[in-house]
Amino acid sequence: MVRPMQERAVQTRKLILRAAAESFDESGYHGAQITGILGRAGLTQGAMYFHFKSKEDLARTVMLEQAADLRLPERPAGLKQLVEITLTLAVEMQRNVLFRAGVRLAVDLEGPAVRDSSIYRWWTDRFNDELVEAHRKGELLPHVNGAELAEMLVGAYTGIQLMSQITSGRKDLPRRITSIWRYLLPGIATPEALAGITLADGAEARP
Amino acid sequence: MVRPMQERAVQTRKLILRAAAESFDESGYHGAQITGILGRAGLTQGAMYFHFKSKEDLARTVMLEQAADLRLPERPAGLKQLVEITLTLAVEMQRNVLFRAGVRLAVDLEGPAVRDSSIYRWWTDRFNDELVEAHRKGELLPHVNGAELAEMLVGAYTGIQLMSQITSGRKDLPRRITSIWRYLLPGIATPEALAGITLADGAEARP
Repeated sequence: MVRPMQERAVQTRKLILRAAAESFDESGYHGAQITGILGRAGLTQGAMYFHFKSKEDLARTVMLEQAADLRLPERPAGLKQLVEITLTLAVEMQRNVLFRAGVRLAVDLEGPAVRDSSIYRWWTDRFNDELVEAHRKGELLPHVNGAELAEMLVGAYTGIQLMSQITSGRKDLPRRITSIWRYLLPGIATPEALAGITLADGAEARP
Repeated sequence: MVRPMQERAVQTRKLILRAAAESFDESGYHGAQITGILGRAGLTQGAMYFHFKSKEDLARTVMLEQAADLRLPERPAGLKQLVEITLTLAVEMQRNVLFRAGVRLAVDLEGPAVRDSSIYRWWTDRFNDELVEAHRKGELLPHVNGAELAEMLVGAYTGIQLMSQITSGRKDLPRRITSIWRYLLPGIATPEALAGITLADGAEARP
């Protein structure tokens, strides 16, 4: 009898996280209310407190598990895959509420990121995995330090999606992510690696 | 008798804006309170309402006038000056409360930027002025679109300062801004322009 109970608990936890993500996405950390989250999930306070002890705990979990519903490639494959991941994330930002809410909480200076910046580290490591592989395959110019570049990319991505949200409701996000690569690739990739990467809008990395 | 009154009004407005900037910098849009701002400024509500009609109005003004105390070069001079401006901003972010509060409000999704994104446009135009001059002087590679690059830089800068604030209280901001240029310059600048720009940490744009 243990197994079905555990599965039910897992489902309830997911239900709460989804409702919390919807609330944080719409209203931000301050604006979201526990009562609103419970109403969305159709659950009582008791059911929630079994899993999460406070709004801060819920927000922290949404932020840290923002990538749980993303299907990222399991094996690092290098520079081209890193470009593809960033473009996929631009699309996911428009349709995946857990990811979107997690990112919103990560840039909210009144939210949980102020006490826990590990999601920035997580993405930096994920991006760097691709750059380590890119180095191994000889795709990067010799002056590139993968860890430094990964950290720069995560910061740049964070701000570009924020600016896109504020100025266009994220409609232009894929175009803006393409812009990063258009200007960055020629300074980090070997000519051979560059030739293998085509950016959208009919524009190559180096025209 | 008109002139002294006007000057007093200008001084009062400055006093209120400074107090508001300190409050928004410390507590964010939601956390800052009108009463706290008045207490800092040593003024009554009446004195404030003569200049600003609400907290939103105050926040919008701090955000839009964030650059009022910065001494930016008056004439565009090209790529090297753009690099210097971004490094100067990294230092100003640490000591200029009006700038810091204005930037914080510009990334606050519960703040005034949600209804007025013009400060992003203002910085994009300012950065682009340098790139237009850089193009005129032949410092940029032919594929560079100044307006697109300026927009990308403003977005990237926004996120990199936010990530730096969250992970190190902005201590590492100058290093992170140097990183952008280390990887971006070789893909946008001519070899001659590149040779004229030295980045900190003893590291050249292209080692």
